[in-house]
Amino acid sequence: MTDATRTRRAFDLAEATAVLARTPATLDALLRGLPDGWIQAHEGGDTWSPFDIIGHLIHCEQTDWVPRVRIILEQGEARTFDPFDRFAQFELSKGRTFDSLLDEFAVLRRASVRDLGALELTEADLERRGTHPSFGAVTLGQLLATWLAHDMDHVVQVARVIGRQYTDAVGPWRAYLRVISGKQG
Amino acid sequence: MTDATRTRRAFDLAEATAVLARTPATLDALLRGLPDGWIQAHEGGDTWSPFDIIGHLIHCEQTDWVPRVRIILEQGEARTFDPFDRFAQFELSKGRTFDSLLDEFAVLRRASVRDLGALELTEADLERRGTHPSFGAVTLGQLLATWLAHDMDHVVQVARVIGRQYTDAVGPWRAYLRVISGKQG
Repeated sequence: MTDATRTRRAFDLAEATAVLARTPATLDALLRGLPDGWIQAHEGGDTWSPFDIIGHLIHCEQTDWVPRVRIILEQGEARTFDPFDRFAQFELSKGRTFDSLLDEFAVLRRASVRDLGALELTEADLERRGTHPSFGAVTLGQLLATWLAHDMDHVVQVARVIGRQYTDAVGPWRAYLRVISGKQG
Repeated sequence: MTDATRTRRAFDLAEATAVLARTPATLDALLRGLPDGWIQAHEGGDTWSPFDIIGHLIHCEQTDWVPRVRIILEQGEARTFDPFDRFAQFELSKGRTFDSLLDEFAVLRRASVRDLGALELTEADLERRGTHPSFGAVTLGQLLATWLAHDMDHVVQVARVIGRQYTDAVGPWRAYLRVISGKQG
């Protein structure tokens, strides 16, 4: 495998689906049953906790990924995607148990992956275009690649929120832990 | 829960053990069975792939965490920790299957968590000191907090390596995905 093929990949539906299918189990393994202090932890200000993040992922599943795929396939560029509400989870998750959010995300993702498979997308479909409300023309392939990267973004965020809780507790190791120092690796 | 208690936690052995015990299953859920392109992916230059990272976590388990706890408890500050070899995994993982690395990490971590519990550490023990080869005096509590943060550091890294593979594939979404843009959240 050459260096270039190890740092950037072209979008590949089978490869991407393998990752997408694993995200609920990854977050479940990390978070289910943890003491509540970890689940409610955040990074200060209006940053999100693991509780908020799972609610956000649920809302994405319901309104963003497969729904936008269908808009592209059925209506193309003519129909701009509905804007996504980044704050919906604060209302929608209210009063819910964390376990029920993890369960719901797993059920929704399983359905999304099944729906995605059922569409039997071709390479030509991946080039079909839709219209994003902020930045205009996007392809179906870009949308699906973003779905995966967005999953990883929030896995990063959950692990970072937890790790940074010990910013003071790690003492002199602070400078050597990128999750705390914020240095890019 | 006040804002301050949500952004920083004092080290708590039970809370930390809950996270430490979950790390192998988290990485297993994310990585086992993925196409090899994801497992060998890295961020360019001498950065690490998921394959390298699991090997590193195995080596840490064997030489770093519980061994250093024992040095502190048995020999205190008089005995400087052995320096850690950050590159050991490149030899040690050679020729191994990725599944066997995941399995070994899980077995070793289970033993570490069991050993840690068997020590029945007290609050006073957490204040006991050891000597780090680079930065001198550290406490047992700082070592254990670092263990957890180090786990999260590498969960972050694995998810980042995977997400960044689609830096080009996501098209105009690039600027909105922190895992790719590198913006701190």
